Amino acid sequence: MDMHDLTRSLIAKNDSKIVMLVADGLGGLPMTPGGKTELETAKTPNLDRIATGAVQGASIPVKPGIAPGSGPGHLGLFGYDPLQYQIGRGALEATGIGFPLQAGDVAIRCNFCTLGPDGNISDRRAGRISSEDSAPIAISLRAIKIPGVEIFVEPVKEHRFVVVFRGPGLGGEVNDTDPQATGVPPLDPVARDEASKKTAEVAKEFLKQARVILKGQSKANFHTMRGFAAKPNMPSYEDVYGLRAAAIAVYPMYKGLAHLVGMKIIGSAQTLDEQIDVLEKAWDDYDFFFIHFKYTDSTGEDGNFDAKVKRIEEVDAIMPRIEKLSPTVLIVTGDHSTPSFMQSHSWHPVPTLLASHCCRPDHHTAFNETTCITGGLGQFEAKYLMLLALSNAGRMGKFGA
Amino acid sequence: MDMHDLTRSLIAKNDSKIVMLVADGLGGLPMTPGGKTELETAKTPNLDRIATGAVQGASIPVKPGIAPGSGPGHLGLFGYDPLQYQIGRGALEATGIGFPLQAGDVAIRCNFCTLGPDGNISDRRAGRISSEDSAPIAISLRAIKIPGVEIFVEPVKEHRFVVVFRGPGLGGEVNDTDPQATGVPPLDPVARDEASKKTAEVAKEFLKQARVILKGQSKANFHTMRGFAAKPNMPSYEDVYGLRAAAIAVYPMYKGLAHLVGMKIIGSAQTLDEQIDVLEKAWDDYDFFFIHFKYTDSTGEDGNFDAKVKRIEEVDAIMPRIEKLSPTVLIVTGDHSTPSFMQSHSWHPVPTLLASHCCRPDHHTAFNETTCITGGLGQFEAKYLMLLALSNAGRMGKFGA
Repeated sequence: MDMHDLTRSLIAKNDSKIVMLVADGLGGLPMTPGGKTELETAKTPNLDRIATGAVQGASIPVKPGIAPGSGPGHLGLFGYDPLQYQIGRGALEATGIGFPLQAGDVAIRCNFCTLGPDGNISDRRAGRISSEDSAPIAISLRAIKIPGVEIFVEPVKEHRFVVVFRGPGLGGEVNDTDPQATGVPPLDPVARDEASKKTAEVAKEFLKQARVILKGQSKANFHTMRGFAAKPNMPSYEDVYGLRAAAIAVYPMYKGLAHLVGMKIIGSAQTLDEQIDVLEKAWDDYDFFFIHFKYTDSTGEDGNFDAKVKRIEEVDAIMPRIEKLSPTVLIVTGDHSTPSFMQSHSWHPVPTLLASHCCRPDHHTAFNETTCITGGLGQFEAKYLMLLALSNAGRMGKFGA
Repeated sequence: MDMHDLTRSLIAKNDSKIVMLVADGLGGLPMTPGGKTELETAKTPNLDRIATGAVQGASIPVKPGIAPGSGPGHLGLFGYDPLQYQIGRGALEATGIGFPLQAGDVAIRCNFCTLGPDGNISDRRAGRISSEDSAPIAISLRAIKIPGVEIFVEPVKEHRFVVVFRGPGLGGEVNDTDPQATGVPPLDPVARDEASKKTAEVAKEFLKQARVILKGQSKANFHTMRGFAAKPNMPSYEDVYGLRAAAIAVYPMYKGLAHLVGMKIIGSAQTLDEQIDVLEKAWDDYDFFFIHFKYTDSTGEDGNFDAKVKRIEEVDAIMPRIEKLSPTVLIVTGDHSTPSFMQSHSWHPVPTLLASHCCRPDHHTAFNETTCITGGLGQFEAKYLMLLALSNAGRMGKFGA
């Protein structure tokens, strides 16, 4: 049985409030054998106090041993099996810049490239053109018009931009035009299925007009198209959980991921403090709040153990403001681990805390990688966290009589 | 999504080395209430020292409560879902004597039987004929020739032998000819599907010629055929993990199981010390080494608690030689538990140890059935162990962006 069919059938509505605070890349490793992790090193009096009356566990983002990107990491936390719901590269790139994809859209990652006089690619990244130089060139492509299709062109960074086609009958199964080599011409867009033939035709016309517009450019005189992807077909939070859900995030990628599952993106906070301001203001209007904090991940990616410790302490310091709102269920977790030691996302289970009046607290009085292993939630796949959130909020009826 | 499609898509190659030492039937039970298990009783200073810097957990061979045979037990450890990949009885018997099955082969377990003058079976096991007597009789059946099919006949033990048919168009779905009763004639081989009709015909012809050859025998004057099975279609370690894998085993069954997943069977070691000699010599030539130690299982099957303790200490004593090679990932586990108390395979989770520079060590300083339950790997299905091995070796890229 599909888990969402199950949750749909058990939805019970009430006035409860669920807060899920995601400290990105929360889990870590010691820098030296026998040492402490970032979370174990950080002074977290508030989280430890909450842990004393809460239940904790170790969340496995996808499956044991699988290190996820932000996409699968968050889909799991949102309760969408990340192996079932895969976001194509183009859709993820569009999501990453916060582009609100609609059902039926096809998103494409584009790279400016340099064509030599012979028409062959001489540089697949247009001399790594700067963002300042490339953005206006990308925007110049908005002049392209194709009947029956709405077209969006969004600059990303350096040689990269995103194109989105919107219109009826557009499939996402089209091959890359990037030949992955220089000294050869770009490829034509070729559909891999019947439903994507129109997309391939539209892409061909787009490239034809782009070639004319870009002709005069010295570096970026053409572009390739890669990772064609339709918007993934994901049921909404409202549909599967009966929740009015809001996302309070700073970075476009996380707003985009929340948008994919139908959360409303609220506020324009730039700091964690401002995010909590937004939370306070919107408190009465939503049932579920996803709060995303990026810097526990970015400091880990930088290999900056001390900075990650400080960022964790920043999360800890904000907790009383959230507690003051008396959420029915308060969850603190991460979408994956990002150990400073590895300077990358990893597969290690993520410390996860759940507080509610009926959570069956475990015996722990601290919250970290060591305690969570023997916490009351045990080790569990992230995709089950929303079920726990809903039941702790009294929002899920009994299964079967 | 199939887990092997996932691992294939994430393969990252490097110079790492993975060693998986399987102490067969490692897990145990106390002989008396409140007592210690074999592993808890054994003096294991090396394993305990390794455990101090490693992560451990409890491996569930198939599913909670399922006691596996050697086949499913090892397939799980190798990362092949033992419920998805089932090895038919004939193929397992052939594997058990180390017969290198090829794709398309059909293997059959055969039992010598005694026919009375009326043609009915008077003894389904030919008077439990001795191995010494039956082996030459089985070998005499190699005289059987059937056009278009290569035939192998291999003695096993007592009344048992294996027949393998090799050739195009042979399906494995043929009914047993053993009527499971005496006083009735053997059954004809009957195909259960279209693709196996030729196999049934070949079997019928084989039985016809066998009847003539065996005519003069007093006990073994005929034989039945059971457990027809095609070679299971299993992708190789090279294919799904990108690993050059070697198996260092003493017993044919484990060589056979390793062969099924494409491992190279290396050396002809007869003792654990000799197995490590083989490991040392082959160190540069492979990425992954499966070392199989049988006697922790056989002593358990014998109900000999003290002998099993000694065998575990033998495994412990060898650890420094493996450590000296500095494997990137070192795993010590078992394919299932074989408690001396039960004198049989059991379903109990198996203590499993994983050491690597990035394994996130847990707080344990010993390695046994009690510690593993609260280890950092928690309880996990054996089929995920290879994912953990690969990621700890840096051999698996990030899933999704």
